[in-house]
Amino acid sequence: MQKPIKKLLIANRGEIAVRIIRAARELDIRTVVVCSEADIDSQAVRLADEHALIGPAQAAKSYLDKDKVLAVAKEVGADAIHPGYGFLSENASFAEACEQSGIVFVGPSASAIRTMGDKAAARTAAMAAGVPVVPGSDGEVGSLEGAIEAAGVIGYPVMIKAAAGGGGRGIRIAKDEAELCQQYPIAVAEATSAFGNGAVYLERFIASARHIEVQVLGDGTSVIHLFERDCSIQRRRQKIFEEAGSPVLDEATRKALCASAVKLAEAVAYRGAGTLEYLFDSESGEFFFIEMNTRIQVEHPITEMITGVDLLKAMLRIAAGESLPYSQQDITRRGHAIEVRINAEDPEKQFMPCPGLVGDIVWPQGPGVRIDSLLRAYYQIPAYYDSLLAKLIVWDESRPAALARLKRSLGELSIAGVKTTQPLFLALLETDAVKSGEYDTNWLERWMSGKREEQKPAESTAGSAI
Amino acid sequence: MQKPIKKLLIANRGEIAVRIIRAARELDIRTVVVCSEADIDSQAVRLADEHALIGPAQAAKSYLDKDKVLAVAKEVGADAIHPGYGFLSENASFAEACEQSGIVFVGPSASAIRTMGDKAAARTAAMAAGVPVVPGSDGEVGSLEGAIEAAGVIGYPVMIKAAAGGGGRGIRIAKDEAELCQQYPIAVAEATSAFGNGAVYLERFIASARHIEVQVLGDGTSVIHLFERDCSIQRRRQKIFEEAGSPVLDEATRKALCASAVKLAEAVAYRGAGTLEYLFDSESGEFFFIEMNTRIQVEHPITEMITGVDLLKAMLRIAAGESLPYSQQDITRRGHAIEVRINAEDPEKQFMPCPGLVGDIVWPQGPGVRIDSLLRAYYQIPAYYDSLLAKLIVWDESRPAALARLKRSLGELSIAGVKTTQPLFLALLETDAVKSGEYDTNWLERWMSGKREEQKPAESTAGSAI
Repeated sequence: MQKPIKKLLIANRGEIAVRIIRAARELDIRTVVVCSEADIDSQAVRLADEHALIGPAQAAKSYLDKDKVLAVAKEVGADAIHPGYGFLSENASFAEACEQSGIVFVGPSASAIRTMGDKAAARTAAMAAGVPVVPGSDGEVGSLEGAIEAAGVIGYPVMIKAAAGGGGRGIRIAKDEAELCQQYPIAVAEATSAFGNGAVYLERFIASARHIEVQVLGDGTSVIHLFERDCSIQRRRQKIFEEAGSPVLDEATRKALCASAVKLAEAVAYRGAGTLEYLFDSESGEFFFIEMNTRIQVEHPITEMITGVDLLKAMLRIAAGESLPYSQQDITRRGHAIEVRINAEDPEKQFMPCPGLVGDIVWPQGPGVRIDSLLRAYYQIPAYYDSLLAKLIVWDESRPAALARLKRSLGELSIAGVKTTQPLFLALLETDAVKSGEYDTNWLERWMSGKREEQKPAESTAGSAI
Repeated sequence: MQKPIKKLLIANRGEIAVRIIRAARELDIRTVVVCSEADIDSQAVRLADEHALIGPAQAAKSYLDKDKVLAVAKEVGADAIHPGYGFLSENASFAEACEQSGIVFVGPSASAIRTMGDKAAARTAAMAAGVPVVPGSDGEVGSLEGAIEAAGVIGYPVMIKAAAGGGGRGIRIAKDEAELCQQYPIAVAEATSAFGNGAVYLERFIASARHIEVQVLGDGTSVIHLFERDCSIQRRRQKIFEEAGSPVLDEATRKALCASAVKLAEAVAYRGAGTLEYLFDSESGEFFFIEMNTRIQVEHPITEMITGVDLLKAMLRIAAGESLPYSQQDITRRGHAIEVRINAEDPEKQFMPCPGLVGDIVWPQGPGVRIDSLLRAYYQIPAYYDSLLAKLIVWDESRPAALARLKRSLGELSIAGVKTTQPLFLALLETDAVKSGEYDTNWLERWMSGKREEQKPAESTAGSAI
């Protein structure tokens, strides 16, 4: 049943709010962006048709306040809400409350969010759909005894993971039974305090894994994939450099991986844009489903660059009741895309967030360069939120060409006033690992500790000059 | 014979100099840009590895001074020269002088420039290759009597065109023999004073024509096409809004058109990037070759957007002796691209150029948006050159989507301090002609006179208020 969206409430901030405004505007949908007191002068507020102040800077009292967001949506007469990523985007009860108020939640059904948002339930669903998962416990391990028994079947090393965790939080590794006995109670305590839920489960720890994820789009009936992204370059389990496609997949593996993602998303009658995350063992060539993000992701632009599909516009069209605007054979790959995250962080001070007053900005331009950003010149970056300032996305016909274009673009970029991750990427482009594409999820941390070692003054030579 | 280019002299200015620097940098080629005194603070000078001052602001004493440019190339040790568009780009003797100095001219051979740069010779070459041309005189008409005789065969209305003309200059139209008698001496006099050459020829005047051009790439042996661009929206015969592909071609016509362009370019053993311009009669569906530009064109980015090919990088690779980096079947179309030219002109004052001091700039960003520009904030636009400040290029999966994206992007763009053509494009997007794609080369002028009529105070009602 089609029901055009005329007015969209954007329940988010930063670059993704800007991204959603652009998509809505191109579809002739009026936009209202919510904002906290800290964001009243944001780029999203400037670009949206309307804005609504919903509370103080603290997200809990503004962007995370379900009731307030929903009340504002009713007040302004929005017929749909786009939650972006983070905040309320994977909150099943919020999705439910929207539906009950007759407001379209731009995303999957509450039940799909519930199933796929709970890692143990998602794993069970994957196994039922015949999608390979990392060898692990059959759901939660209720006790240390259960954990020891499961680990015996899985084989060490194992990871202890919080069932309600996410983004790399709440994970501990145990190399053997002794470590498991030591780590188990810590993991449960952490899970309880971080997520209000002490449930944990075990998984095989894959020493040299790549993080590869598949983008899907569904309309509640059919699901298609839009190929994969490789997000293995991570710092403290946060992605900072993503590419599409993965430099290590052969065509047969790519096909099997993407087909498995479609199968699993279809099993939950998935609607909207979603991402199925996998670990890929580049030694064995095996892939294992780990979890699904039932929302748009930060790194979605690289998929848009290689496929030509505007994922945000597709989400809005599907939310308005349209069937999938594409069939699987419409989706083809062209060239190679890379995204780097320009964060307000100081690479020389362990990437400490460093918000502040931005000065002049020079953006890279020319062919194959895309910028998604919340910045403008002389903008005061608020200190309350994540440190993402801009995504620099490049496309070219091949991976080496895309790397060269990234280097060229990073060279043109200049953001005065604040420290950013820009120099880190220029350094990364000189490494053999990035040039060859041969890296795993721990590579960046190893490389950075190596750099720190190098920079230590060599004590033996200090003071040796005559 | 391959001979890598290590250092490239860019014999141009403005946005195309910036474009060439980017291409060279991505290929790891060192860049030296020449500049006049008026351009010493230009964006190209800032971005290039080196710059060389070659003379005063007047182009004749700097950018057009062949000897100076060549001397600088030798001085800095450049192994190639990219001429961009305009200036020396279609100067056969300059190309020859480069070759004789052992410096690669990034473009076709001097003989291809000569043949295709002379409109009458190009027409003869087209006829020899079996490519349809506008019915016209068999070369120059030496006298009024010859003109009358030719017009009798061609059929009125006819155009009188300067053999050495270009860019729409030196053209007169005659509806009948009386007008021909009146216009002929004027045309000859104008041709003599403008081009130092009074030779003219006649062509059938097609009342409702579209300007459609085909992009080709050759390596001196093979030629491929990269589909067409439709540049029918012109003001005083200057293109301001271009799209790829043409909204009016069916697949069979597109195929025939592109094949004819390849045939003709192959006939002159074309090397580098070139464009074959055609008139398309949308009523009869016929196309007629009119002329070839033996250089890169302003509107090349829309072809890059739909094909994924970087034309500037391809030019440099071919100039270094590589064979064509693509075969014809590698070249596919995806989606639709539009370019609009943001010129420093005042739409309210008959588009008078209005250089000046630029203030803050907000560039549009997000998916499918590309900017090629010579601007930065607080830049003083020199008054000596053409008024092109920036090209806003958009891509999306379909023409309607690209139009919506163009509207969104134009809404985000803000260039403070100077008047530009930006509001013109916002107005154009509201017209039925642009929405439907049904316009010809005279449409814009007609539409603009209509607007002027509308804006005249209606005399009959003036002063009628009680």
